[in-house]
Amino acid sequence: MTSSGFRPLDDKSLVEYIKATPALSSKLANQLDGLQIKEVGDGNLNFVYIVVSSAGSFVIKQALPYIRCIGESWPMTKERAYFEATALREQRRWCSDHVPEVYHFDREMALIGMRYLEPPHIILRKGLIAGIEYPLLAEHMSEFMARTLFFTSLLYHDTTEHKRAVAEFCGNVELCRLTEQVVFSDPYKVSQYNRCTSPYLDRDAEAVREDNILKLEVAELKSMFCERSQALIHGDLHTGSVMVTADSTQVIDPEFGFYGPMGFDIGAFIGNLILAYFAQDGHADQVNDRKAYKEWILKTVEQTWNLFHKKFTALWNEHRNGSGEAYLPEIYNNSELQLLTQKKYMQDLLHDTLGFGAAKMIRRIVGVAHVEDFESIVDASKRANCERQALVFAKMLLKERRKFQAITEVVLAVQQEQS
Amino acid sequence: MTSSGFRPLDDKSLVEYIKATPALSSKLANQLDGLQIKEVGDGNLNFVYIVVSSAGSFVIKQALPYIRCIGESWPMTKERAYFEATALREQRRWCSDHVPEVYHFDREMALIGMRYLEPPHIILRKGLIAGIEYPLLAEHMSEFMARTLFFTSLLYHDTTEHKRAVAEFCGNVELCRLTEQVVFSDPYKVSQYNRCTSPYLDRDAEAVREDNILKLEVAELKSMFCERSQALIHGDLHTGSVMVTADSTQVIDPEFGFYGPMGFDIGAFIGNLILAYFAQDGHADQVNDRKAYKEWILKTVEQTWNLFHKKFTALWNEHRNGSGEAYLPEIYNNSELQLLTQKKYMQDLLHDTLGFGAAKMIRRIVGVAHVEDFESIVDASKRANCERQALVFAKMLLKERRKFQAITEVVLAVQQEQS
Ligand SMILES: Nc1ncnc2c1ncn2[C@@H]1O[C@H](COP(=O)(O)OP(=O)(O)O)[C@@H](O)[C@H]1O
Ligand SMILES: Nc1ncnc2c1ncn2[C@@H]1O[C@H](COP(=O)(O)OP(=O)(O)O)[C@@H](O)[C@H]1O
Ligand SMILES: [Mg+2]
Ligand SMILES: [Mg+2]
Ligand SMILES: [Mg+2]
Ligand SMILES: [Mg+2]
Ligand SMILES: [Mg+2]
Repeated sequence: MTSSGFRPLDDKSLVEYIKATPALSSKLANQLDGLQIKEVGDGNLNFVYIVVSSAGSFVIKQALPYIRCIGESWPMTKERAYFEATALREQRRWCSDHVPEVYHFDREMALIGMRYLEPPHIILRKGLIAGIEYPLLAEHMSEFMARTLFFTSLLYHDTTEHKRAVAEFCGNVELCRLTEQVVFSDPYKVSQYNRCTSPYLDRDAEAVREDNILKLEVAELKSMFCERSQALIHGDLHTGSVMVTADSTQVIDPEFGFYGPMGFDIGAFIGNLILAYFAQDGHADQVNDRKAYKEWILKTVEQTWNLFHKKFTALWNEHRNGSGEAYLPEIYNNSELQLLTQKKYMQDLLHDTLGFGAAKMIRRIVGVAHVEDFESIVDASKRANCERQALVFAKMLLKERRKFQAITEVVLAVQQEQS
Repeated sequence: MTSSGFRPLDDKSLVEYIKATPALSSKLANQLDGLQIKEVGDGNLNFVYIVVSSAGSFVIKQALPYIRCIGESWPMTKERAYFEATALREQRRWCSDHVPEVYHFDREMALIGMRYLEPPHIILRKGLIAGIEYPLLAEHMSEFMARTLFFTSLLYHDTTEHKRAVAEFCGNVELCRLTEQVVFSDPYKVSQYNRCTSPYLDRDAEAVREDNILKLEVAELKSMFCERSQALIHGDLHTGSVMVTADSTQVIDPEFGFYGPMGFDIGAFIGNLILAYFAQDGHADQVNDRKAYKEWILKTVEQTWNLFHKKFTALWNEHRNGSGEAYLPEIYNNSELQLLTQKKYMQDLLHDTLGFGAAKMIRRIVGVAHVEDFESIVDASKRANCERQALVFAKMLLKERRKFQAITEVVLAVQQEQS
């Protein structure tokens, strides 16, 4: 491997790089003639190359020292690639069914070589916009979240392991700061980066900036995000970080990974599903009124949480006598107490999930980075109506989250928002 | 400085060490004849030497790779001295009035040279047992806690600084584990290390081990202790870590320091004051019924919290436009909202304080390490009565902590427990 220092790759230098890197060239049976290379990065931050030959394929992802969609004016450490590679490997360790394999990592080059998620894999968000049902999505995502979060929490880690891992991921501070800014701060203040569907939502965006109770609640969530090392979270688990086919679900792009509150991941996923729901009216046409699809989305929200709950508590029960030190079996030694502690833990986690989910929804409507679900609705007034419904719901959810006891109540509230 | 590897010191080799260490010998004007050396470690973990000559003085504290009061059968990293030295310096940086100066630190030798807190300084716990009033105690301790906690929290730190410091103190994991065990676990299970005033309290200790609601609440506190990096806490802030005279208050022994929940420190101090209160009846005699002293202790509890509240929020207001990123002034931009957020923050902190304080009380009655306040009551049945009152109060406080809105209500509850 020849990696003397960092250089941004292009299609040409990438071939040289692959030649010099056995872990990559071997995937192509060392046959580099007729290689097809395509840059497909549609994300906000990095460059992604699909590399395909007749003998094999992989994806190369490279981080440059700035944010791609903004440019060199917003610098961002390329060390994020190290945390992405580390998180990918750790998540794959616990959930190999739903995380692509890392073939190669080059820290200096901020470069990851990983499995190419071949067609018909598409980004879930695009599937949701197209109105495609994924019957296994809730099953798979609940599995990913239950396993990656459980096995990196103190329910499974002993304290020594946990603090070592927490310390390591403290290094991913620049990405944490970015989240702090774009999720918990910018939407609640005037910021050059904020955007909204203007002029329709100008007043709504202003109302967010003037809502004392909302800001009070957001402060609590931000503190939790900054202070609470509950588990290794993905950190960016929206529907654009999931690639799907009818029977495969793969989670990519954990470059924001660090030890944070579990609810931030679960909330990101569920919040983005609810955004997809509120966007559906904007995609309805005479062929498809999207009514059934909206019901499928809500069923998926419900099943995701309920299956997560089931799997997470099953892992907890299974590993009760394991290495985890949070609930020692000699103390939590009767079934009534075990039920009581789990119920409290899961109830708190639901409330965190709803809070973070709501915050993630809000920031996608009045913050810097919007979602294609809404952006692809061409008629601005129609788009604004969809966004406003989502915003009203999210504000309510953030403020009232502690009143919800079960996910069915949340789903009911979504439906009521629209009727 | 000659420090090739680690060796436990004794009176003799200590003199050689001082000779070879300019930072120490200079404190004695390089005059080492007629040196007086006395080992005074009365703590549980380490060795402390007072070194005095006609020209000057200091204290040498050395950590051995085990727990002193148990012996080599309970190993404990001597690296704790590094975290103690680091915490002492950081705390002194923010509160030089109440933290002794570190003259010298030798990491390999796990050895700290610091200011000798000369007579009449005594350990506060001993003063409380003797019935001595310290009119400035609440003023000083509230100052120490407000300043060390505020300046190491995200109210003052930016995220980058905070995560760097959090990561560093993750290294103090062995001491954190010890706290987890002796404060949050052992008292709630059968453990070879637990002790209580037997047979009087046998049934009470058993009741603690069988109290589901208590265990449910302790789990929440333990999680917070393990997961929440709110500020650099002292980690062992009982009344045996404070040395006092009529006008000086000095906090020593932060070897358990790490980034944890602020309430753990405030609770430790207040909880130990309440233990001192419940011990007073055991120290009463015909000369002194201790009634007035008990009132002074309660007044000190009340003032400590109220002054802490005042100073902490004053620092917050003063640094509102500073480097801290938790509450950006552009978001928390009106006085109603500022009041609202502070009120919520301080109310949560009070509840954490009461929870941790109660847990610290309980562990001193049915756990491994007891307090001299009770131990010095010779009559076992009398001692058991004092301890039982404290235990009943602490259990109530731990379970009902969220119902208390102000410290006066807590003080009232203490008084009611005894009437
Ligand atoms: N392993 C992969 N297989 C196939 N396509 C991928 C893979 N990784 C990324 N992509 C494509 O590249 C896009 C951007 O990747 P992503 O990891 O999300 O980058 P960013 O960090 O910039 O958001 C994805 O939306 C997806 O279309
Ligand atoms: N700087 C000091 N000045 C005077 N006495 C001290 C000083 N530091 C410690 N001591 C004495 O040594 C005892 C043990 O010190 P401490 O730091 O609490 O050790 P440990 O970690 O073993 O509890 C204290 O109770 C006090 O009597
Ligand atoms: Mg992405
Ligand atoms: Mg990304
Ligand atoms: Mg001590
Ligand atoms: Mg002062
Ligand atoms: Mg100590």
